[in-house]
Parts: sequence; structure tokens; C-alpha cells
Amino acid sequence: MTTPQSWEARADEYSLYGFTDLPSVHQRSAVVLTHGEGPYVVDVNGNRYLDANSGLWNMVAGFDHKGLAQAAKDQYDRFPGYHAFFGRMSDQTVMLSEKLVEVSPFPRGKVFYTNSGSEANDTMVKMLWFLHASEGKPEKRKILTRWNAYHGVTAVSASMTGKPYNSVFGLPLPGFIHLGCPHYWRFGEAGETEDQFTARLARELEETILREGVDTIAGFFAEPVQGAGGVIPPSKGYFQAILPVLKKYGIPMIADEVITGFGRTGNTWGSETYGFVPDAIISSKNLTAGLFPMGAVILGPELTDRLQAAIDVIEEFPHGFTASGHPVGCAIALKAIDVVMNEGLAQNVIDLAPRFEDGLRQLAQNPNIGEYRGVGFMWALEAVRDKATKTPFEGHLSVSERIANTCTDMGLICRPLGQSIVLCPPFVMTPAQMDEMFEKLDKALGKVFAELA
Amino acid sequence: MTTPQSWEARADEYSLYGFTDLPSVHQRSAVVLTHGEGPYVVDVNGNRYLDANSGLWNMVAGFDHKGLAQAAKDQYDRFPGYHAFFGRMSDQTVMLSEKLVEVSPFPRGKVFYTNSGSEANDTMVKMLWFLHASEGKPEKRKILTRWNAYHGVTAVSASMTGKPYNSVFGLPLPGFIHLGCPHYWRFGEAGETEDQFTARLARELEETILREGVDTIAGFFAEPVQGAGGVIPPSKGYFQAILPVLKKYGIPMIADEVITGFGRTGNTWGSETYGFVPDAIISSKNLTAGLFPMGAVILGPELTDRLQAAIDVIEEFPHGFTASGHPVGCAIALKAIDVVMNEGLAQNVIDLAPRFEDGLRQLAQNPNIGEYRGVGFMWALEAVRDKATKTPFEGHLSVSERIANTCTDMGLICRPLGQSIVLCPPFVMTPAQMDEMFEKLDKALGKVFAELA
Repeated sequence: MTTPQSWEARADEYSLYGFTDLPSVHQRSAVVLTHGEGPYVVDVNGNRYLDANSGLWNMVAGFDHKGLAQAAKDQYDRFPGYHAFFGRMSDQTVMLSEKLVEVSPFPRGKVFYTNSGSEANDTMVKMLWFLHASEGKPEKRKILTRWNAYHGVTAVSASMTGKPYNSVFGLPLPGFIHLGCPHYWRFGEAGETEDQFTARLARELEETILREGVDTIAGFFAEPVQGAGGVIPPSKGYFQAILPVLKKYGIPMIADEVITGFGRTGNTWGSETYGFVPDAIISSKNLTAGLFPMGAVILGPELTDRLQAAIDVIEEFPHGFTASGHPVGCAIALKAIDVVMNEGLAQNVIDLAPRFEDGLRQLAQNPNIGEYRGVGFMWALEAVRDKATKTPFEGHLSVSERIANTCTDMGLICRPLGQSIVLCPPFVMTPAQMDEMFEKLDKALGKVFAELA
Repeated sequence: MTTPQSWEARADEYSLYGFTDLPSVHQRSAVVLTHGEGPYVVDVNGNRYLDANSGLWNMVAGFDHKGLAQAAKDQYDRFPGYHAFFGRMSDQTVMLSEKLVEVSPFPRGKVFYTNSGSEANDTMVKMLWFLHASEGKPEKRKILTRWNAYHGVTAVSASMTGKPYNSVFGLPLPGFIHLGCPHYWRFGEAGETEDQFTARLARELEETILREGVDTIAGFFAEPVQGAGGVIPPSKGYFQAILPVLKKYGIPMIADEVITGFGRTGNTWGSETYGFVPDAIISSKNLTAGLFPMGAVILGPELTDRLQAAIDVIEEFPHGFTASGHPVGCAIALKAIDVVMNEGLAQNVIDLAPRFEDGLRQLAQNPNIGEYRGVGFMWALEAVRDKATKTPFEGHLSVSERIANTCTDMGLICRPLGQSIVLCPPFVMTPAQMDEMFEKLDKALGKVFAELA
């Protein structure tokens, strides 16, 4: 009799792991999951984890929401697939576009569907390249983003992403420019006030536009709160300082709301939380509460009119994905928007955000926590070797991976990012589950910092 | 009392149409679909269409397959979403990777998931850039594809696509080289035999490699049968002529099987139909029978080993999509592969392909049909003004759009591509439905050619 291969060994044998710390997997083995209960997930061995990462920010309604599953199942019975090419599309697609414009900050607009945030950002870049060329400015192609921005992993959206790891692919491609990250605690200079720091970033933006030439800049993309950069809310007054600069030079401002959209920051949009209206919104993740791969470009009125005029000239916009506007994805998104906005999930984020911040404020008294930061249901704790000098731990110690792995052993999933620990739980988290999260994290921090002392 | 807006007007108001002939939509209005029955789809007004386009090649089991819907519904009840980062993934993901390697032409391999064929091609390009740089050849970045190839719409996969429409985006990006299209009927020179034509394309490939420099070429991508280029099977001996050239210079050969994979050509893989084994396979569309957005890169043994070695050095492959390996998509794909391969669908393609070809041969007797071409369940008829000289119709006449629109009026959906009409029906099509397709198409051709005579 042969011993059947374990699930973990089968995962190893057939998977080229992405975004996975291989030393951790080799030491601890893969985790193969079978199901979930509220904000918990369960593996093949029956271990149960409180997933304070919401899967990947996206499973905001938890892992077994009955109403969402029912919406998916009903649509699979009704019409299980179609595209949106050739002027044909499903009724669900029409309804979702209408709903997205309705809940957007725009008085009117148009929607274009993709399968991911990566594809939506990539699509938006193509739209800008096309638009500017059509308006007689084919050189207007450079894309401005920021360090620590995360916009995806297609070659273009990875080029927009401001993370050093993309150098292994020879990225960014030429013409993708990364401006300063608006993280005052880390990048503020000695003696610089937060207002001065913000003003410096706005000056950097204007100097960059003038140096590169305004007729070479296609657009500026920003997450209202940088997500995979380590949960970095903007410095005070950041968007109010940079938006006038973009407006002065006529550069479209695109808000990447893949993480911040639909309630994560305590409002429908992160741009709302930070008091600005972009020219277009990139949406994904929460859009379907993680139940279906979907992204959307939501264009505000000005970009809608300019793009439609450009398309009318050539009579066909030669772009679109096979599953753009998939009826099942649209039906799920319609339900997810309703569940988040009208069934108490968005309200729970608002109600529990103060409790969340209280818990972090207490943990941040630890001498090895340099900063806690965030908003709504997205927060980070930054580990430091020395609090006063903000000196990080030595890189080879992998401090955040150690903390995350220790948490996992205790049944809590959180995400190591740089030397920070990110917490972005499902919106269905209860106060008791939040207490469980903090208790486990507190123990893990104590254990790891004692080991590294 | 206000008149409610029509579905069609609502589609217009909120959609930025992709891949849509706008004059046709303006003249005829959008078509908004509510459900399907076998290979038929039905619109909001109760009109019923035989969809000989399988949606977009992908709805191979038709529009109401009970077993597939049940697999989706069961997984929504079990575990409705997770990712594949950080060494965590669902049990469905493990099982599908195992299955994909099992049904691939490779003795062993590894799988990486995306949400679309576009993302899978984009991912493969990033893998090649990373691999070559890791092996000390960072200049090995150029990508070879062919004219009329279609590989997707991200900026990089659109750069791989060999269609003139991408110039409106300022694409292709530098470093994407398009070789000759292996369509003998259209591109064979006067007096050139098919063998000579094939040999010329192989020479062009070798000359291009030598001109550009072998150390600048990252890989060669090809669809076994060009799909969105207008269903173009390779000229006789094409892959047997070019594969030795690629092997001689150590250039990876990637088969884009997004359309041809899982039965469309009468075998599991199009590469099987044309007698070659690639270094990696790009899969999508049929992979989930259109019920879920999913793409996969399936790496053969050599690329698996080289890539894994390169990743081991940096300890983490910094790439992956949020919904990569989504449990519902994987559960659907496992069922779709079983349904296509074991429940008679692949066999139906084999059984009815001769009848399909007979029907086309008869239609091709029309003096305005220059050629019929294809294999399995993917075929095209090429309209011509003059059969002897192969002269096309005047472009402003939009001959193929006219034929497709006339078919739509008769309740048949087929796809205009250039001046050809593409037929790629669901694998569940019956002989009677095939007869219906040909009868309607015959009438439409007669009507349009009479109008344009």
C-alpha cells in the first residue's frame, strides 16, 4: 500500500508559488484551505485561522456569506457566461454599470470592465495613451505614480508599482516615473513639519512635470491610502496640495480604489475620506467581495466625453477582455455593493474603527513598534529595532515574516509587508473577534521581540 | 408617468463599448441578453440567436450546462473565494494544477494562474524576462510573434498581437517583433508552392534571430491556429519547419492555446493536432468553458526547472494576481475539463468536423467566397470581390459586418473578422443545429452579395 501524497506536497509539486516567502514554505509547508466560516478559514488538517487579511483585502463579507453565494448561484442558473463585445452584453452588465455610476462620485460617467485591478490599471493607461494621441499629443505617454504604490503585476501595472522587487523583471518600462511616498513618519526630514513635508511633495510633482515636459505626461495614478506598500495614509493635506498642480497642467488624476473602494476606509470611496474627486476610479477586489475576478474603470464625465469622442472617430475601441462584464461577476457585484452599503458591513467598519485604533494604540506602546497607522479597517504596525531613531531590524532577521508565522501558529493570519504587519479584516468582524485578533497579535509580538532582543 | 429607459439605451448610456463596430450599434442598437438554451442565447425582447461564436470561443458547453453550473454552485457553498499567495491556496487549486499537468503534453511541469489569456501571456513574458536576466542575459527581452496573431489586450499582450489597430495606442512597445503570417492562400507569392512558402517563413525566422542577435530574443509565441486573426491554420509543415530553428538558437517556444486548447481543433491541444510539443502552454477560455475568468501558464519540465532555480535564488517570485487560483474557478475548470474530455463534447467535435467542412465546401462554391479554412470546430469563410484574383471588397462596404448583421437578423450570431466570417460554435451543437447555421448563413451570403454585386 502506498502512502498518498499529502496536500502540501502536491501543492509544492505543481505550483510555481507567487508572492510567497519560499524559506517560510520550505520550513513550515504550504497551507491548503478547504472552507471558511465568517472571517475564519480552515485548512485540510482542520486548523482554523482568523483571517485578518480578508484573503487579499477582498473577502470583505467573510468566507461563507449566504446572500452573496445565492446571488452567484442564481446567476449560474440564469445565464452562466457572456462577453460584452460587438454591442452585445448581459442584462446584469447593464445594471451594474448603472449602479457603479450611481454610487461613484461622478454625476455621470461610463464603465469599462476587466478581470482584475492589474488589467484595469493597464486599461486606463492604454485609454490615456489613445486619448492623448487622438487629441494630437502622441508624446503624452509618461505615467506618474509614487514609491510604495501598488497598481498590479501586468508589465505595465508592475511598472506603475513603486517597489524595488520589480527590477528582477527589468521593470519599470521606460516612461514610468515614481514620485515621493507621502509617509511623513518615515520620509519626513529632520526638523520638517508635516505641512512642510506635504508642500515638498507637491513641489516635487510640479518640478517633475516641468522637467519632463507637460506634453509628455499622460496621467497621475494614486491609491487614496497606499495598500500593499504597507497601509500608508497620505500626509496631512496631501491630495489638497497635489490636485491643484495636476489641474494647472491638465493632467488626469486617477484614483486606484482597488483596496480602498466600497467601505474599507469608512466611506464608499477612499477619495471621499480624503476629500477629493478624481477624474476616474479603478475598482476591483471589494467590488465582488472576492467572489469573482473583476475590475472596472469608472470614468468621470470629462474623460467619458473625451474618450468617447476619440473612439467615435475610429468607430471602434479595439480593446476588451473575453470575460469583461461577465454576467455572473456583475450579478455578484450588484449584490456585494448592496450587502456592503445596505446590510451593515460599511456601518460596522465605521462603528468598530475607533475600537480598532484603540487596540493598535495600546500595542504601539511596545518599544519595538515605531508607528501604528491607518484608517477604517486597514491598519499597520511598524516594527523597529529602536523607537527613538526609527531604526529597522536587520533585514536577515525577517522580523515581519517571523511575527506573521508566529501569528499563523496561533490561528491568526496577518500580512508581513516590509517590516510592518498589516491588518485588514473582513467587514463582518465582531468586537469579540477583534479582541481575539489583538490578543493573539500581542502574544506573537511579545514572543518575537523577546527572541530578537 | 415617465417611460422607462429601454435596456438598449441604458447600455449605451453607461458602457464604453469595446471591440464593437459603433456604426452597427448606432444603426441597430445594442443587444442585451438575459439567458441561454444550449447553443442559443435570448435577448430582453425574446429574440433567440444560435451563437455560432460560442460567446467568444469559450462557451463550449453552451449557455445552460447543468453539470457545470452545479460545480460552480457547490463550490460557492463550500469556499467562495481565496488567493494563492504566501504559500496558502485552496484544495481546488492543488487539484486543478495536478490535472492540468496530467492532461498537458508534458511529463511534469508547474502551473501559474491568472484571470485571462491576456494576463497569462503578459505573465509568460515577465517570466522569460526574469529567467534570462537571472541566467546572466538581461538583454534577452525581445518577443517574437506573427502578423495576425492575437495574444490579448494588456499593453504587453497587445504588443504581441499582430493587428494594425493597436497603433492607436502607440503599440507595439519596442522589442515586440512580428514575423510573417503562415496563411498561404493570402500571403503565398506568385508561383510559390506551399512548401516553398513554409520554407520562406522558417528562413525569415532564422534571419530575424541573426539580425536581432540571439542574445536579444526572449521567446517565440504562436497560436497553433491563429484565432482572432481570422482562423488561420498553419501552412503545411509550418511548425516542423520553425521548431528546429528555435531549438537551434535555444529560444523557448510558447503555444498560446487560449482558443485551441481543450478540444477546439479535435484534440486536447492544438499543438497535438499540428504534431509538436511546446516549452509552455498558455490556456484560458475553454479552460472554464466560459463560466469563470481564468488563465493558466503551464510550464513544461525545462522551463519549470530553470524558473524554479531562478526563483530559489531570490526566495520569492514577486508576481501574482489576487484571484490567481480562485477556488470557484478551479472547481469549474476541473468539471469543464471532465465534461469536455469525458462527456462527449470533444468527441462531438471530432464526429461533426467532416460535416462542418462539407457545409463550408458547398458555401465556398459561391463566387464571392475566396477560401474556406479551419479545423475541428473553428472555421472561416473569406469574402472576396473577385475569386480569381483574390481581390477583397472595398473597405467602406464593411462586407463581413453586413453579413454578420444580416445573420443576426435571422437569429444567427457569427463573427466578422477582416473580410472573413468566423464560425466557432459550442461543442454541444447538434447536426440539426449545424444545418440551421448553414441555412441561415447561406441566405445571408446570398442577400449581401446580391446587394453588393
